[in-house]
Order: sequence, then structure tokens, then C-alpha cells
Amino acid sequence: MRIRELGEDSLIRKIRKRFANSASVVGIGDDAAIVEIPPEHSIVYCSDLVAESIHFLRDLHPPDSVGYKAVAVNVSDVGAMGGRPAFFTLSMSLPGDLETNWLDGFLDGVSRACADFGVHLVGGDTSSAERIFVDVSMIGHLPRGSQVLRSGAKPGDGIYVTGMLGASALGLERLRAGDASHPSVHRHLYPAPRHRVGMALASQVSAMIDISDGLSTDLYHILEESKVSCRIYKHLLPQAPDSTEHQVLHGGEEYELLIVGRNLPPKVEEVPLTLIGEVTPAAMDSQIYLIDGSRETALKPLGYKHF
Amino acid sequence: MRIRELGEDSLIRKIRKRFANSASVVGIGDDAAIVEIPPEHSIVYCSDLVAESIHFLRDLHPPDSVGYKAVAVNVSDVGAMGGRPAFFTLSMSLPGDLETNWLDGFLDGVSRACADFGVHLVGGDTSSAERIFVDVSMIGHLPRGSQVLRSGAKPGDGIYVTGMLGASALGLERLRAGDASHPSVHRHLYPAPRHRVGMALASQVSAMIDISDGLSTDLYHILEESKVSCRIYKHLLPQAPDSTEHQVLHGGEEYELLIVGRNLPPKVEEVPLTLIGEVTPAAMDSQIYLIDGSRETALKPLGYKHF
Repeated sequence: MRIRELGEDSLIRKIRKRFANSASVVGIGDDAAIVEIPPEHSIVYCSDLVAESIHFLRDLHPPDSVGYKAVAVNVSDVGAMGGRPAFFTLSMSLPGDLETNWLDGFLDGVSRACADFGVHLVGGDTSSAERIFVDVSMIGHLPRGSQVLRSGAKPGDGIYVTGMLGASALGLERLRAGDASHPSVHRHLYPAPRHRVGMALASQVSAMIDISDGLSTDLYHILEESKVSCRIYKHLLPQAPDSTEHQVLHGGEEYELLIVGRNLPPKVEEVPLTLIGEVTPAAMDSQIYLIDGSRETALKPLGYKHF
Repeated sequence: MRIRELGEDSLIRKIRKRFANSASVVGIGDDAAIVEIPPEHSIVYCSDLVAESIHFLRDLHPPDSVGYKAVAVNVSDVGAMGGRPAFFTLSMSLPGDLETNWLDGFLDGVSRACADFGVHLVGGDTSSAERIFVDVSMIGHLPRGSQVLRSGAKPGDGIYVTGMLGASALGLERLRAGDASHPSVHRHLYPAPRHRVGMALASQVSAMIDISDGLSTDLYHILEESKVSCRIYKHLLPQAPDSTEHQVLHGGEEYELLIVGRNLPPKVEEVPLTLIGEVTPAAMDSQIYLIDGSRETALKPLGYKHF
């Protein structure tokens, strides 16, 4: 069956039935949802979109990965502020001739992400379109005043990264080459956002960002916002097996956290934390210096850019 | 200049600079925004998307209308719960070869909507795509427990509608015919959501919905959720000048409020409120009965359906 035959009413009923939950005061099915966050907490609020042919290829990426990732990337953003993700809306455009199997797979992924991350679908919108387009917005919360910004890095702070780097870019490469069995492919398709690490460390770190555009680009965002520079050490970078130096330094969609702080433990919430460098004062413009043995080179942000 | 030449960084900087505001604790430019709502209030939360060739035609609809409407439709949804709209995210995909003039016009519309409705852009996402796609999510708030649902209509309640009906569908028809001077065209391009009416009446009405899919379809949503039927009177319907009966009964994108309650005043917040019928008990399935003189006919929901 195709989406056109299923029809909009049945599509919405299907989603509403599947994602009914008691976490919201009012969920899917009214003009808007009504949700609550704990007293003395602030709302953490973001949105992240997924466009066919740009973020995924219909022939290459399984539909449940598209659904899982659309939720996971927002969980990652909420976590990078130190927040606990809670509720999300899902807006999607689907071609009328899309097989309903695709939709079912997509919703499987969304559903699994809900379970994995403890978040709840509470509303959204649907329309037809020539291409699949998905936008998820998410609400999380954190104790008032405890958010961790990109702008708080100070000279002398250490720079840490969760997990390993390079796996997502490597996974995409292997997937494209038809080798879906490499462990990095799973990593690329079903990222593991580090929101639990972000929440656990929020009160003791000075800056945080999730790596969505690549280490070089997202580290540079912190430096620019904090008006500092930094040194990172090549031999300290936690490199995913089989990944290249370019994938480690510039590969996007990692959804690891880049954390700036002092004396952080080697493991938080079961996730390894690696010290990769330190924050230094900025001369004029912010710079990333990559130290490779006795060589020091300025590292340009070469991560993913749209347009 | 085209979007591709402008580049993603400049695009985001442009938006960030233009929509900087002090209403949020943290606005555009970090992983997520941090916002606050008043104590003892609940969050009203929704999203609504706008897809090129489905919701608008690039050659027909001015870009500032696309921006204005993307915000206005969410304001309308928050208002239909009785909430005060406050913050929104904007996710958009733009073709690389799109003229930056289009983006500037679009942002003019978003900006004007912010001023008109007292809402603030606090975050979002951008990507390239073959077609323009815009999704806005919005957060509003209301005193805890004061939300007005679709499911509260009771037999004996009156059915009221704000403003006039038929203008938006008429406006689209005139716009397509090349007659942009008709007042209904402005109405179609720059809808006036009735959130102030929704907020003012929240504590005294039993059900509310905004008319986005057409009177027949949205009224039917209330009946279905409330498990009731209703009678509406043709001679009572507030018909926009020059509009047809079909446009009044089924025309979408009105963004008027359909309100169910008792003894409501003829004007609220300067907006006329018209009694058009009454809620009746449902036999088996919910039905809308249209009374035209001595004739009574069952009115089918014939509003807009995707797919």
C-alpha cells in the first residue's frame, strides 16, 4: 500500500494510537500538546531537520534509521546544554506514492528512540511533498541556571571528548561501498547521544557542544563563542577502529560531546571521557592548534557545510 | 546573490543578528535555547509545516507571506488551546540556487509576525534541499489546568465562530486568477490568528479549535472528540463578501476560532463572535446537520486532505 491510499486521517490515527502516552497532560490529537516540566526548571528547546537526498538516501538508509536519528540528534542537542530531553513534535512531508512500509519502518525507529532516550512524541504535522522531509523539535529541562553554553571555555581548561571519533563518517563510507557489516555502519545509522553524560557533568564544566558537524568545526564553535584558542594532541584523539585521520578530525554526525572543564573523570555514565587538549588565550582570532609530535599546525574547521 | 553563494554560516549569522532578543535566557546560536514560562503555568507545544508546491507556490505567494503564515498558523494552534504564544523554532530547507532576496522577504514576514503576535524566534536548523520546506514549532503557556480541548462540547452548548468565513479560499482563488487587489487575497496571505480571543475565553468555554482545514472538517473534529452531533444554521454563518457557500463551509486556512460554550458576548478583543448553531446528542456517529430554512441536510466534512 502507498501513503496516498492510506490517507491522512489513517496516517494520523496510526501515529496517535502508537504513541499514546500518559507523560503529557494532552498529547497527539488536539491543536497543541500540553506538557509540564518540574518546578524551578528552565525549558531547553531545539529543532533539527532531516531532508531526503541531503541527510539520507532512500535507497541506502533503512527507514528505521531515519526515524531513530531524527529523534537522537535532538536528544543530543538537549544533552549538550546539560538538559534532560522529555517531549518532541514530529513534522513530516511524505510523497503520496511512498510505500506505507517505509512509514512503518520510520515509526519503528522513532518508537525505539523514545524507549532508548525516555522521550515522548506529543504532536506534529503531516503533509504531502515530492521528497521526504522530517523535522523534530524537542523540549527538555534543567534546573534553572544550570545550562552549559558554548561560550564558557577559559584558558587552562581541559578539552575532553566522549566515546570515539571517526566512526560515523567511516560508517557512511562503508554503507555506500555496500559493506553494511562493519560495526561503524550501525554507529552511523543509530547514533548514541551522550545526554546522560551532559546531565551528569552540567554543574562542573565550563562549555559543551555536541559534535554534529565534525570535531574541527564544533570545537571551533566553542572557541569562537568563548573568544579563546586551543591545542589538541593528535596522539590523544580516541580514534574509532579503521577510521582515517580526516574522519576523526572532520567527520560529522558523531553526536559525541565535546566538553571543556577541569579534572574530569575517565568515565561518566559508563561512557569513556578522553582529555584531548587544552584551552589557550586567543591572540586575534580563535585558532585550533593540532600538535603532532614536535609539529604544530593550525587546524581549519573542515566539517560539513550545507549549500 | 544565491543561497549557495551566501553560505550556511552567513545565513545563520544573518538570522541570529536579526532575531537577537532578550526574551529568552539563551537564544539562537547554542545547541538549544533556554526559555522560561511563568510559574504555575503549563507548556502549550505544537508544530506546523509549510512545503513548497503544497502549501504555497514560489511564483504565486510572496516570500514574506510564507514567513508570516508559518508563524501565524502556530500562533493560531496555541491560541486554540487558550494559550499565550511565546517562543518558536524555525527549521528550513532551501535550494542552493534560491535567490537571497527570497530569504530576505521570508525573514521580513517572520519578523513582522514576531511583532504582531509577540513571539520570539529562539532556534532552529537549516539545510539545503531541492524544494523549500519550512517547519515552525512553538511554545506557549497557560495557567495550569486552563487548556480548552476539542473534547469538551456538551449537548445544549452554543457553537460560535470568530470573524468571517470563506475569505481565505476566495483569496487563493483570486490570487490564482491574477486579481491580487481583492481584500480576501490579503486575508489569505497574512492570516490573523485569534489567540487573544482564545486566551480571553479559555476559562468560560467547553471546546475550541482553529479552522485550518475548513469549517465542516474542523467542526467534525470537535464532534468526534466530544462524541456529540450539532446543528448549524446557514443563515447565521458569517460569510465573507463575494465568497461562495462552498468556501464558507469547506474553505481551509481560515484561522478563525470555532468555539463551543454558552452565552458568549458578540465581541471579544475587538473580534466579532457569531452564534452559528448548537451541540446536540449523537445517535451512533457524530453528524453535522445544516439547517437551510425548513430543509435539514447532513453536512459531510469536505475540507482539505493531504495525500
